[in-house]
Amino acid sequence: MENFIYDTPTKVYFGRGEELKVGKIIKEYNPRKVLLHYGGKSAQASGLLDRVRKCLSMEEIQYVELGGVVANPELSLVRKGITLCQQEGVDFVLAVGGGSVLDSAKDIANGVANPDVDVWDFSLGKVQPKKTLHKGTILTLAAAGSEMSNSCVITNADTKEKRGYGSPCNRMDFAIENPELTFTVNAYQTACGTVDIGLHTIERYFCPGHDTYLTDAVAEAVIKSIFKAGKDCLANPCDYEARANMMWASSLAHNGLTECGRPSQLVVHQFEHEVSGLYPQVAHGAGLAAIWCSWARYVYKANIMRWLQYASHIWNVDIDFEHPEKTIEKAIDLQEKYYASIGMPINLRSLGVKQEDLEPMALACSRNKTRTLIGDKPLAYDEILDIFKMAF
Amino acid sequence: MENFIYDTPTKVYFGRGEELKVGKIIKEYNPRKVLLHYGGKSAQASGLLDRVRKCLSMEEIQYVELGGVVANPELSLVRKGITLCQQEGVDFVLAVGGGSVLDSAKDIANGVANPDVDVWDFSLGKVQPKKTLHKGTILTLAAAGSEMSNSCVITNADTKEKRGYGSPCNRMDFAIENPELTFTVNAYQTACGTVDIGLHTIERYFCPGHDTYLTDAVAEAVIKSIFKAGKDCLANPCDYEARANMMWASSLAHNGLTECGRPSQLVVHQFEHEVSGLYPQVAHGAGLAAIWCSWARYVYKANIMRWLQYASHIWNVDIDFEHPEKTIEKAIDLQEKYYASIGMPINLRSLGVKQEDLEPMALACSRNKTRTLIGDKPLAYDEILDIFKMAF
Repeated sequence: MENFIYDTPTKVYFGRGEELKVGKIIKEYNPRKVLLHYGGKSAQASGLLDRVRKCLSMEEIQYVELGGVVANPELSLVRKGITLCQQEGVDFVLAVGGGSVLDSAKDIANGVANPDVDVWDFSLGKVQPKKTLHKGTILTLAAAGSEMSNSCVITNADTKEKRGYGSPCNRMDFAIENPELTFTVNAYQTACGTVDIGLHTIERYFCPGHDTYLTDAVAEAVIKSIFKAGKDCLANPCDYEARANMMWASSLAHNGLTECGRPSQLVVHQFEHEVSGLYPQVAHGAGLAAIWCSWARYVYKANIMRWLQYASHIWNVDIDFEHPEKTIEKAIDLQEKYYASIGMPINLRSLGVKQEDLEPMALACSRNKTRTLIGDKPLAYDEILDIFKMAF
Repeated sequence: MENFIYDTPTKVYFGRGEELKVGKIIKEYNPRKVLLHYGGKSAQASGLLDRVRKCLSMEEIQYVELGGVVANPELSLVRKGITLCQQEGVDFVLAVGGGSVLDSAKDIANGVANPDVDVWDFSLGKVQPKKTLHKGTILTLAAAGSEMSNSCVITNADTKEKRGYGSPCNRMDFAIENPELTFTVNAYQTACGTVDIGLHTIERYFCPGHDTYLTDAVAEAVIKSIFKAGKDCLANPCDYEARANMMWASSLAHNGLTECGRPSQLVVHQFEHEVSGLYPQVAHGAGLAAIWCSWARYVYKANIMRWLQYASHIWNVDIDFEHPEKTIEKAIDLQEKYYASIGMPINLRSLGVKQEDLEPMALACSRNKTRTLIGDKPLAYDEILDIFKMAF
């Protein structure tokens, strides 16, 4: 087990009606002015935004609004948000939405608090934010795990780069999670969330490490629960218990709990960022599903025992000790079938990705052949291109 | 699933050598003066206290010392600590030791920060602390989980009352967990820790609730890991990986993670507090082991399905669908044998408890027949006495 720091300060208010506490919760931070940040139509149409405005007004909290966050949130809106906050003297950011809104809010908070730095340099890893504003969220989509994570992923539409960065400054002060707010999430987005949540933990599970059986067992708990919850949410979108387990899985999968004692890199996420960076219409979870099984088949032989454990514990495949590869391939097949069964793509072609873009994507993913992704089988440019081709 | 608040702000520094960071970590809080609080001989003899003193001095941190915390930490020393802190202008408490030292430190920090309240009133539940001092710990014993919990248990030697209270003020700001510091914990204390850690989660698991399958699976992960780690630590006290999994299990078992969405009361702990309150020589974990199996046999029929899940998932007992009770009894027997195998008592008699004390203990546990412990089978005075008699 490697040394680690566990630091998950986000306070979670979980359950029915919890969003009505938002005014009182923010009041504790005694903010000068709040930025109410959100996406588009759904939070407005559902009446959620009006309820939030009312809660803020009841506590006499001053606020300004900025909507318009899109899936794969854009740097240009982040810059607009920073300018607005500076003009208005905003010192607290409230994100109402899913992972895109949250990440946009995080980047705005970091940009405002570090005015001497170009905010895109955070994403490029050139500089780390030293401070941030207080911030919280009312979550409306169980997927990205941004509500408890230290992660922030932003897309630069000009350069078609999608880049994530981790920082303690990216932790929300609080997250309000009412599963009822996700009843209206459509089947496709629910399936995308299922994939994304699962892979936040599965990808950590396959980072090289040893003797972390407590972390492994917790990870397996999250993985099995999300496969069940995803299926149940699709069968009945208003199943409170399924939505609740899915939402809580979203938070635990990505808050650091499932990586304690192991190195951590979300390898398949690195592949996917190139896909949805170049094709912004591709939903992140769909992109992940299209790549994961190819990645798995490409790398599993580098750690047969680890993959046997996965096959046995997650997919309940009986171990064929004479032909362990068959056991593993059966498990990967089962996961592929699961993805197909919830309407997810299992290759890139079906997402509209063009063959001629595979090489540029591999080049970008390897940072022009300067980056090797970690794993029992490390992946440099050539391997990354192989996997993109397999996944095509 | 019930609504819940998840709030575990304690920052954990986990692994080899992490205690050497203590000076730099405390410096971030910019303290006026630190109380260095500890127990007795072992932290001194091991050289740990000298290393800590050196780390504090290197950062030019002022400190005063108070040692002498005993197992089942006493109110009298807490009062002494509060007076010392007031006289010396202490505003930060550093606990070096196990759960007893940590709880003593928490109570001192709460007492100093709330000078208008008698500190024992926190334990009696008459009043909640409103503020506290910053505090951290270097943990030397994996057992109580106090390093991340909101719990504090103090014994009043005058009245022979042992009382715990929960409060956000009881959360440590940071916890330094180096598994190597537990290599010298003897076999008996290691076994006691194994019991205590396991029951922090097992007792939550059996609180009434529904549709918390993610929380259940995480709880089962912690429970299975601690049974394995406990055995491995006893087989080889210097097995770093076993000590590491045990130490991390200690933190996760009691930080709130394994109760999300369920009501929570540590029922068997309530029984045990009466035992070691009256018999301070009884180690807490040993007292728990002596009671748990009797409690389990007394209550299981009130929720056959939950206990079948436990028997199957934790003890891998094949379910006898025609005679489910047999399945459950087999699992309880296995747990009893496990406790015996690690040198733990399985009845109160062997701990020196006298038969004539059972009624007074039941009376105290039921708070003079005014308190009913929660569960699928609620336990008032009569049931508590039945269980004490079974466990005798």
